[in-house]
Amino acid sequence: MKNGRSIKTSTRICAIIGNPVEHSLSPAIHNAAFTELGLDFVYVAFRVEDVKHALSGMRAMENFRGMSVTIPHKIEAMKHVDTIEDVDRHIGSINTIINDSGNLLGLGTDGPGALKALTDAGVNLSGKNILMLGGGGAARAIAFTLANNGGAAAIEILDINETIRDQLTMDLTTGTNAVIRSNSMTDHTLAKAMAVADIVIHCTPVGMHPKEGVSIVPATLFRPGQVVFDIVYTPLETKLLADAKSKGLQIISGVDMFINQAILQFERFTGVDAPVGVMRRVVMEHLKS
Amino acid sequence: MKNGRSIKTSTRICAIIGNPVEHSLSPAIHNAAFTELGLDFVYVAFRVEDVKHALSGMRAMENFRGMSVTIPHKIEAMKHVDTIEDVDRHIGSINTIINDSGNLLGLGTDGPGALKALTDAGVNLSGKNILMLGGGGAARAIAFTLANNGGAAAIEILDINETIRDQLTMDLTTGTNAVIRSNSMTDHTLAKAMAVADIVIHCTPVGMHPKEGVSIVPATLFRPGQVVFDIVYTPLETKLLADAKSKGLQIISGVDMFINQAILQFERFTGVDAPVGVMRRVVMEHLKS
Repeated sequence: MKNGRSIKTSTRICAIIGNPVEHSLSPAIHNAAFTELGLDFVYVAFRVEDVKHALSGMRAMENFRGMSVTIPHKIEAMKHVDTIEDVDRHIGSINTIINDSGNLLGLGTDGPGALKALTDAGVNLSGKNILMLGGGGAARAIAFTLANNGGAAAIEILDINETIRDQLTMDLTTGTNAVIRSNSMTDHTLAKAMAVADIVIHCTPVGMHPKEGVSIVPATLFRPGQVVFDIVYTPLETKLLADAKSKGLQIISGVDMFINQAILQFERFTGVDAPVGVMRRVVMEHLKS
Repeated sequence: MKNGRSIKTSTRICAIIGNPVEHSLSPAIHNAAFTELGLDFVYVAFRVEDVKHALSGMRAMENFRGMSVTIPHKIEAMKHVDTIEDVDRHIGSINTIINDSGNLLGLGTDGPGALKALTDAGVNLSGKNILMLGGGGAARAIAFTLANNGGAAAIEILDINETIRDQLTMDLTTGTNAVIRSNSMTDHTLAKAMAVADIVIHCTPVGMHPKEGVSIVPATLFRPGQVVFDIVYTPLETKLLADAKSKGLQIISGVDMFINQAILQFERFTGVDAPVGVMRRVVMEHLKS
């Protein structure tokens, strides 16, 4: 199979923009899905610094249908789209742009991808205490989505950075009806939070390749019945997840959130159900190689 | 073969912009050539109205390497590139844009494509009288290229439109060192010009599909030794060429100019010699189907 053999003048284009984009799996994932369904789409990667003009260009290129937005442009991109969904305005970042006849719609699929990872795993959020470790960009997206969906009893946020933590707490309190608690992250607050948490969502880079083998949650704090979700997916099983698994807890890997955010993008790009199995296989092949 | 199977984050993108672009052969031609040489490039088509912003976008997308520009944007595109080759500034239109690290270079390959069609056919321009029938956009590109290359004795331009004819004549006289003559196109001027022309280049739409079977040159005017070049390529053999051929004259079809302009674009996009045979085969397959 070679590039572009069946690209036609009718082919719609999707792309990831970011800097760097060299290591993105998105072209492989989306092109495999387009091929699987025989859709007249192609997905490329553009290294971009000037987001504003990249989006002007997308708007002018009528069959430039969709964009995935990655670091460092998830916040900046919001300024240059035409429409943003309310929840994404609160979250303050987007990872997806849809070009509807020159109107650029910005939205995020990271939060919904995390929610789907939880619900696909059979986790019922209703009445549960959710503990979020870390309050950065990904945590914001997930926290807003969970605060608006599923009926959790409360969301508690621990972060060592007071500014980030307070901002997210204030935004969640203002922007949603959920019960929000927050605290600095210390041995003490972590132990206290773990003692009441039903669902633990880890949103810091700790444990990520190349700094594997480290977890911020002492294994002694796990309690029976907890669900542990790590948004890190390199490695596929972090020390946090390995520890939780060894205690018999249900674990969810960040790869599920990663795959789901791509699935939700794909469905926005094309309007059809994503070929989930193919997309998962491509991700797994890349992550294991 | 399906879309995008081997598209990677490193893949460089080329595109045609125009409106309409539905019938363009360029994606088929260039993608076949990329595949043939195993180059990490892909070529797509964008329907564009807003040329300015499309080019802003190209500039911002670092691996958006090259663009083919077609009707109606060949003149407008000049305003939005950063650098234009001198001859193209005189011609007043471009059909190619190269993105060199954010600097957009505009140039034309129609004139050089026509020149290459002549020289590939073994036609020596030196000391020859060239007769151009029609003075529109394509004629401008060809006339400037021939005025600057090959040492023709004189170029005579016939066009029924006085404004177009006078503008081109003035621009050629000012912008090149060639001997330029021009005249209205009547039975009389045509007969007179044909009596001295060594090379006849037809640049009007007469004879083009769906108005086939018509020629503006009465077959009685052909003289032994003349070369007749028709830039029309649908049909591949126009009545003009059929008449010239029946008189035993050397003929050159517009398809050679069309293929050559694509070859020259390809070589600018990639920096490597084009796989001419593959590109010609794709064009011929499409034109004959």
